[in-house]
Amino acid sequence: MSGAGGRNKPVIVLVRPQLGQNIGKAARAMLNFGLTEMRLVAPRDGWPNPDAGPAASGADIVLEQAQVFATVDEAIADCSTVFASTVRRRDLVMPVLGPEEMVRQITASPGPSAILFGPERSGLETEEVALARAIVTVPINPEFASLNLAQAVILLAYEWSRHGEFAQPPAKDLEAPAPHTEIDGMIRQLDEELAAKGYFHPPSRTQATKNTIRTIFTKTGWSSREVKAIRGIVRALVGPPRRR
Amino acid sequence: MSGAGGRNKPVIVLVRPQLGQNIGKAARAMLNFGLTEMRLVAPRDGWPNPDAGPAASGADIVLEQAQVFATVDEAIADCSTVFASTVRRRDLVMPVLGPEEMVRQITASPGPSAILFGPERSGLETEEVALARAIVTVPINPEFASLNLAQAVILLAYEWSRHGEFAQPPAKDLEAPAPHTEIDGMIRQLDEELAAKGYFHPPSRTQATKNTIRTIFTKTGWSSREVKAIRGIVRALVGPPRRR
Repeated sequence: MSGAGGRNKPVIVLVRPQLGQNIGKAARAMLNFGLTEMRLVAPRDGWPNPDAGPAASGADIVLEQAQVFATVDEAIADCSTVFASTVRRRDLVMPVLGPEEMVRQITASPGPSAILFGPERSGLETEEVALARAIVTVPINPEFASLNLAQAVILLAYEWSRHGEFAQPPAKDLEAPAPHTEIDGMIRQLDEELAAKGYFHPPSRTQATKNTIRTIFTKTGWSSREVKAIRGIVRALVGPPRRR
Repeated sequence: MSGAGGRNKPVIVLVRPQLGQNIGKAARAMLNFGLTEMRLVAPRDGWPNPDAGPAASGADIVLEQAQVFATVDEAIADCSTVFASTVRRRDLVMPVLGPEEMVRQITASPGPSAILFGPERSGLETEEVALARAIVTVPINPEFASLNLAQAVILLAYEWSRHGEFAQPPAKDLEAPAPHTEIDGMIRQLDEELAAKGYFHPPSRTQATKNTIRTIFTKTGWSSREVKAIRGIVRALVGPPRRR
């Protein structure tokens, strides 16, 4: 996921893409700006898709190397900085960034990063957006917001490439943020312990509360070491007092 | 050609466009970023073109207001600052700008400005490029330069809008970080609960462990609302299971 210049290239994750043609167009958009790593989550028509190649106009290498995953969780398991691309307002209190600030955070991240794009029609589900550190939104005409998938990809890829010559090397003394799987494990531990305490009530609010907790713990930027510490803290809090 | 904010909106000039579909896509690309004035020079299949409307995805106003000209000269007759969009090198000694510098010159121009885009296959003729003040080129992967007409339009329109037309996403979604006293209160609560559980052991390590906890919880950037949520979570974890 690092480029020739050592710069952190974001992974482009297409979540449940519907048309093979749009997957090809997204690949073409990516390669124009030097992005090469595409991941597909449950593409509707399976993979490989014969419609993708012609639409890629020669960006075959991106399609050939594309990896397929069953869930968003698996697709971003190794990524420590994840953004969700959406123009829609969400019932989630989480940071909303413009493309430029997203690129700044990708460049500053010592670990791999990813950008999630939802299906053509519906966009990302709320639970999928909640997996990200922040929402990224292209500032657009409020009276005519009509970006298709490949256009959203090309604008963010362009923004990424714009900053090439100004890239700052990641600070070495900064601990890398923990990968998604570790954050996720911590959150699930917390969810389980809170459920055991009867914290989630009423049931109609459970999912919203869980999304809030996920958002709170996803934005921290904690390292693996810090995640371990938090897990130990949660165990200590729920356990009986230790005698020494 | 001036926007609501009085800013100089560039005219988009499509020179001898071939497919009606691409004219529609260009209109859609433009309106996403607030550009509304399209001029067509000798469109191959005449005008209006029935393929343009469906491809515009609702950007009909751009198509309806599009003006048709026989030559580039006539299309830019009232424009004082003209750019030629092309990725190809030309046998012409003239300035080559990136999108950002083009936007700066458009914004600084007291008169109307225009950006020329050539036909899908062949691009602008040398004589047409020579009518412009400068060539504008999107910096692109030298090993895979494959922008179609609508993509070239959307990237330059986006660059134009980046500099002020549309506000960045409202920052009110982003809650302000909690003041230090609230973070401090949360950390002290946690310290007390952990001490009650016998977490700090051995005593010689207690201060170092407390410092680590403080560092972990200080870097989160949590809002007051989030700090309250964490305090509730800690209370729930140490308390007895709640009966409902």
